[in-house]
Amino acid sequence: MLETVDLKAKLSKEEYKGTMEALDLQLPALHRGLHTAGVPVLIVFEGWDAAGKGTVLSRLLQPLDPRGFKVYTIKPPTEEERFYPPMWRFWGNLPPDGTIGIYDRSWYRQVLEEYVESGRDKAPVDAAYERIRVFERQLTDNGAIVVKFFLHISKKEQAKRFKKLEADLAFAWRVGDAERRQHRCYDEYAQAVEDMVRETSTPNAPWTLVPATDERFARVKVAETLAAALVNPLAARPPARINVPPDAPRRTSPLDRVDLTETASAEDYGAALAELQAELRRLQHLCYKERRPVAIVYEGWDAAGKGGNIRRLVRDLDPRGYEVVPFAAPEGDEKRHHYLWRFWRALPKAGHLTVFDRSWYGRVLVERVEGFASYVEWARAYREINEFEADLVDYGMVVIKFWLHISKEEQLARFEARQNAPEKRWKITDEDWRNRERWDEYWQAVSDMVERTSTVHAPWTIVEGDDKRHARLKTLRTVVERVGAALSSRTG
Amino acid sequence: MLETVDLKAKLSKEEYKGTMEALDLQLPALHRGLHTAGVPVLIVFEGWDAAGKGTVLSRLLQPLDPRGFKVYTIKPPTEEERFYPPMWRFWGNLPPDGTIGIYDRSWYRQVLEEYVESGRDKAPVDAAYERIRVFERQLTDNGAIVVKFFLHISKKEQAKRFKKLEADLAFAWRVGDAERRQHRCYDEYAQAVEDMVRETSTPNAPWTLVPATDERFARVKVAETLAAALVNPLAARPPARINVPPDAPRRTSPLDRVDLTETASAEDYGAALAELQAELRRLQHLCYKERRPVAIVYEGWDAAGKGGNIRRLVRDLDPRGYEVVPFAAPEGDEKRHHYLWRFWRALPKAGHLTVFDRSWYGRVLVERVEGFASYVEWARAYREINEFEADLVDYGMVVIKFWLHISKEEQLARFEARQNAPEKRWKITDEDWRNRERWDEYWQAVSDMVERTSTVHAPWTIVEGDDKRHARLKTLRTVVERVGAALSSRTG
Repeated sequence: MLETVDLKAKLSKEEYKGTMEALDLQLPALHRGLHTAGVPVLIVFEGWDAAGKGTVLSRLLQPLDPRGFKVYTIKPPTEEERFYPPMWRFWGNLPPDGTIGIYDRSWYRQVLEEYVESGRDKAPVDAAYERIRVFERQLTDNGAIVVKFFLHISKKEQAKRFKKLEADLAFAWRVGDAERRQHRCYDEYAQAVEDMVRETSTPNAPWTLVPATDERFARVKVAETLAAALVNPLAARPPARINVPPDAPRRTSPLDRVDLTETASAEDYGAALAELQAELRRLQHLCYKERRPVAIVYEGWDAAGKGGNIRRLVRDLDPRGYEVVPFAAPEGDEKRHHYLWRFWRALPKAGHLTVFDRSWYGRVLVERVEGFASYVEWARAYREINEFEADLVDYGMVVIKFWLHISKEEQLARFEARQNAPEKRWKITDEDWRNRERWDEYWQAVSDMVERTSTVHAPWTIVEGDDKRHARLKTLRTVVERVGAALSSRTG
Repeated sequence: MLETVDLKAKLSKEEYKGTMEALDLQLPALHRGLHTAGVPVLIVFEGWDAAGKGTVLSRLLQPLDPRGFKVYTIKPPTEEERFYPPMWRFWGNLPPDGTIGIYDRSWYRQVLEEYVESGRDKAPVDAAYERIRVFERQLTDNGAIVVKFFLHISKKEQAKRFKKLEADLAFAWRVGDAERRQHRCYDEYAQAVEDMVRETSTPNAPWTLVPATDERFARVKVAETLAAALVNPLAARPPARINVPPDAPRRTSPLDRVDLTETASAEDYGAALAELQAELRRLQHLCYKERRPVAIVYEGWDAAGKGGNIRRLVRDLDPRGYEVVPFAAPEGDEKRHHYLWRFWRALPKAGHLTVFDRSWYGRVLVERVEGFASYVEWARAYREINEFEADLVDYGMVVIKFWLHISKEEQLARFEARQNAPEKRWKITDEDWRNRERWDEYWQAVSDMVERTSTVHAPWTIVEGDDKRHARLKTLRTVVERVGAALSSRTG
């Protein structure tokens, strides 16, 4: 495929000047347009060493308002970054809505390098491309524009440019071991690039191969391609209104089978709790040693007892190794990013444990019921969430998810108890009462959620919550079992 | 001073149990109180290796709602962190308002270690303590509570504990080279600790020396001290109303001397601009090479031409090495932190350049004029800002500050031009007109700002902006001069 690129393509000075002048007027207007539309844009710059990525990029950005873009220079992952799943560092560096993020090298860098280093063991490379396809699709499905450039020059041209750089003291440092190695292994790299383009050119995030022998040609090609991609910034957005199929009444729900009469006896409770807490503390140390991260999601009805349950879960843990992060409605910067962005940022580091007090499931619960997400958005989210959790599990994270379930009558009793006890009144708000009125809609949303996102690697555990003691023992026991199993499966 | 600590202090089981039970009830209530009051709390845990920091800390946190605290384990700075001023990593890890941040080791760690390593060269240590005093004062002045513990044991006790740890395979790894070294140099460390406590025990952030031979005693002492500190969470806040001295009318202002008739001739402009841009690009590379960071602040009247000026400034720079960051009113997480927090986070990395399109000076401009900050808050901010910039300059940052000045008549002309040109109308909002009505108040605030925050190391440059060409040349020239001078002073 690379051989189809016309490396002799070039532009005369006059052609260049005329075209660039027009683009210099057009691009800032398009930039403002995407600002108004609130659309984020990701531009990937890959290419051969000395292909001119830096100068092409500089020229491209010159007419744009610099407050509206940011350049990310991607290096090999640091030690800290390796404590998280591979895409974590890219999720943490996404352009806010309405701005452009430019990646000087990108998520492709490491795959290309591993491909060549690994002697072509294709399995990890294939897995990486799948991760990348998912990453880019999740972004574009949620309205982002992704444009990817590969700047292509021949091996001969690269040799010529290296020679020129080396001749100038000011630039000689730019040709180092890595660059010389790439030149030596040009053919292997070319193969890797072909694979990359084939595997990751998708309709939503296509590659543009840019002949870069003539810099003028490359500049114009990049600018024109970008301009075309930005002309209709809202193209990727789902239509505001679509015909939403009416919810057929559920005949069965995973919640039907929950036996809310389950209780734990008061006598056994204290001892059992203490034993489980001690065991979890022991497992926490093993997790740290084995660098295994643990994510625990708590969702549940209002007043289901999440707070007290979480407190018992972490009571004996070393506070240096866990964190409990509460989530409410997104604010500020969170609203200018993909809905999963803030959860990626809060993930536990390898060896640590994070409890999510509410989570990414808000997308298919409150956002669905209250209409904050459109039908297309929340209906798509089941898949996105499954992909997200698969990424975590692939990295080695233990993902445990609890739905704390109580009956509608029990909720009412607890609301009233809170209302009537002055020291507990802060726990109950008007919003709780409003949510209660939508019990049936939430019931539907919860049932769908459990059904569609209970996976082998990240299953839901429904916790019978009418008896708080039972609920606390059950969550603790589940965590101990799941974490224990993960550890022995890894070491055994 | 350490010898005054009664290392034999201990508590019987009964005393311990009774006291701890009461504290276990009291602390969660205080925790909720500071949540309601929106007060952040910082708890520093320092102490000898094996003094029991981990277990004391775990016990302290057990009764608290884990959603309301976070533990930061402080290690020596990473390579990445060394690219920023020393306090940067701590500013980036502050508890949001209403929550507790616990520091297992802290900003004191490195000072203690350097003190011992450096053979007692006191100059850098003194500078570090001054930085820390400023840091803690800035936090407590803005309402935070800072509580600092040093867990003290004797050399003999430490030896005993090391022996016990080493005897258990599960814990032997905890006694490594660093710990053995500390034990060998116990006396030097003790001297360092004495200095630390003397130099940084301030009324707003006092140290508590905790005898830790008896763990029960240490646990109670820490919990009691914390409870006392949290009883009145709003104590550190300035009173809501104080008698604000009326502004005496200014007789003179630095703005009086600005000659707004300055212009640049159209003929020379293009060539001069291009020459300065090329020179700045050259300097950018030298900055990168010498790892010198540059911060450029743009403040100015609405319609003073900031956007166009910034665009010319960065036009030829390598986009991988600079960033333009616009600032508007704080949102979300920003509102739950010290007002300088978001600016610390946006600082340029060593070798990079950041343009602040509006900045920390909002505290003494819009926040003062609009009443978002109280008199006490904005009046204190001049000093805080000078300290902040001193920290940056000490680290080697070049700090350049522009006030883009135009006449009231010129502003009106530009507002009207924007209103009347459809393609420019997006640039003007109702807020611009409202701000204009407060011209005189802003004039006063700007005059005070320039007068009080123009320092030798970070002076203000007032840019005559009625003629945009003149303004653009002047900012560029200033940046070229200031950066050039900083580089040669460093290399020469």
